[in-house]
Amino acid sequence: MSWESNVRKVVPYTPGEQPKIKNIIKLNTNENPYPPAPAVAERLKSMDVSDFRKYPDPTCSVLVDAIADYYKVDKKNVFVGVGSDDVLAMAFMTFFNSDKPVLFPDITYSFYDVWAELFRIPYRQIPLKEDFSIDTEDYLTENGGIVIANPNAPTGVELERDSVEKIIAMNPDSVVIVDEAYIDFGGHSVIDLIDKYDNLLVVQTFSKSRSMAGMRIGYAFGCEKLIKYMSDVKFSFNSYTMNMPALELGALAVADKEYFEKTRDKVVATRERAKVSLRELGFEFADSKTNFIFAKHPNKPGKEIFDELRKRDIIVRRWDIDRIKEYLRISIGTDEEMDKLVAALKEIIGA
Amino acid sequence: MSWESNVRKVVPYTPGEQPKIKNIIKLNTNENPYPPAPAVAERLKSMDVSDFRKYPDPTCSVLVDAIADYYKVDKKNVFVGVGSDDVLAMAFMTFFNSDKPVLFPDITYSFYDVWAELFRIPYRQIPLKEDFSIDTEDYLTENGGIVIANPNAPTGVELERDSVEKIIAMNPDSVVIVDEAYIDFGGHSVIDLIDKYDNLLVVQTFSKSRSMAGMRIGYAFGCEKLIKYMSDVKFSFNSYTMNMPALELGALAVADKEYFEKTRDKVVATRERAKVSLRELGFEFADSKTNFIFAKHPNKPGKEIFDELRKRDIIVRRWDIDRIKEYLRISIGTDEEMDKLVAALKEIIGA
Repeated sequence: MSWESNVRKVVPYTPGEQPKIKNIIKLNTNENPYPPAPAVAERLKSMDVSDFRKYPDPTCSVLVDAIADYYKVDKKNVFVGVGSDDVLAMAFMTFFNSDKPVLFPDITYSFYDVWAELFRIPYRQIPLKEDFSIDTEDYLTENGGIVIANPNAPTGVELERDSVEKIIAMNPDSVVIVDEAYIDFGGHSVIDLIDKYDNLLVVQTFSKSRSMAGMRIGYAFGCEKLIKYMSDVKFSFNSYTMNMPALELGALAVADKEYFEKTRDKVVATRERAKVSLRELGFEFADSKTNFIFAKHPNKPGKEIFDELRKRDIIVRRWDIDRIKEYLRISIGTDEEMDKLVAALKEIIGA
Repeated sequence: MSWESNVRKVVPYTPGEQPKIKNIIKLNTNENPYPPAPAVAERLKSMDVSDFRKYPDPTCSVLVDAIADYYKVDKKNVFVGVGSDDVLAMAFMTFFNSDKPVLFPDITYSFYDVWAELFRIPYRQIPLKEDFSIDTEDYLTENGGIVIANPNAPTGVELERDSVEKIIAMNPDSVVIVDEAYIDFGGHSVIDLIDKYDNLLVVQTFSKSRSMAGMRIGYAFGCEKLIKYMSDVKFSFNSYTMNMPALELGALAVADKEYFEKTRDKVVATRERAKVSLRELGFEFADSKTNFIFAKHPNKPGKEIFDELRKRDIIVRRWDIDRIKEYLRISIGTDEEMDKLVAALKEIIGA
């Protein structure tokens, strides 16, 4: 017997590589190629560091109010955390305490099973259909909770709104988490359904469409009661999760609707261009509603393309998981970056 | 049956008030009265917001390296988190998975039992002696882990280093957490013992002596194996807990030894002056080795003094807990703030 026998032993999630080399084309973690809203830079310069000596506002009101204003919900319906990972972890801990399994797809955000293992939550991974779409019927069985990433990652496939609503409506005794990390790039949100269903939690993030991955801001919407339960768990874990820069700069980033729409539209336009180029090279992929494309090539193994891109200082993401091992998840960068990617792929494929 | 029956229901920790009123004398959350090191302000101005679009370094290397350098340990012995609360929460989750109770004092940091409840860890609170000191013998019994705040909060009392070492040495099968949040103000750290005892985790924070409560940075030292277990749990919870400003500015704050020592010495000098003044007014308190004084007055109920101070725009901290309900925890502010406090107390006591 030693202290080691009481350790919670886990296999952690592996995040995408953050190389320190400059001049690399980084298309591996779905970051936004554009900087945050201009007001963020201005506020940073005027920030008074002497305020850092004090604890931040534990209620995060400046950020919560900005999000509530933007999405036209009450602030009692808003939860904020250190990236959507923190928000999702808190939600798993708060809501998934049943003996029945929590359900999510086999191919989805690979943190879901990590959290389930960490918190010792029983879970069942339901295979996506051959075309990576979800069969709604699979989620109408007994369960201890449901998690749907919509659009799904890493596939990029959207589940239509009616099907999402059906899953929520047919599971009134489970909390249904809809992880909308990529929703702004063409998906259809269910935020408006939080008034209709008290078992719905919608999670979003500043890391993709708001160009703020480096600030770690995630948020969620739900009915007042549900948000209160989550907040109680959060305040039992860490009273002050959001630091002053995250609160102040996050509030400004969400307020600039015009800049948000302009940069989002650019990413979407670049994605549509990239789809055309990739199809011309023979790549196959489901239609993406996100800021990435999940593609494979019929003539070349995924691993080989991945390695060849790496040699050319282009990083994409790939998983050594049977069903998807031939696929590359390619984040949408600038037009220039995508042109370089396409040129490199052309070389690699020998097209 | 509804989803509510599977909710983890908890009574959260209540943090000290963060009033938004200006010109208040805020002596309730043990913040440092002085701003962070000058390099922090400089770096803030030169920070490139376009970097915020990218995820931060998940290994937190710039901050970990700065801490390792300062404390002359290897970086493999360092863990960082979102304030020491995050570090402690991760440690509870990682190490306290026994059926035996985790031990800590009845009067100590009031988050320990909140974490134990949150993670469903059995625990036993051992009464401090009448003078608020710890009886080392109490911690030589069977247990699933030990947590000692040293110096203790909210009492300010230090447990001598030999006794801390005895508790660590006599409990090789339990992880012993020594929470040194206030160590820099006069206590004796056990950081150097991490090489000698593989069951020791020493936790510190940037929130007090480093004037960075608003940035949320905590850290811990332990043997490589112990830090690895904690990191695995952390990476199973949230890969990127520390945002870019926290990493960059934290690294600069820890590097400026001269500024750190100067401001710490000022706080200690102000505390010693305050002790003299409070004693003159008849206050009773154990000798504090922290940046606060935990005092009561024989002629006036704690609640009354607290309320009277509040009317004069001075906030201190008080708990409605039987053993300590007559006490006020008074953070050490600037000399000027403490003079105003003493003048107000003189009025209230009628001395």
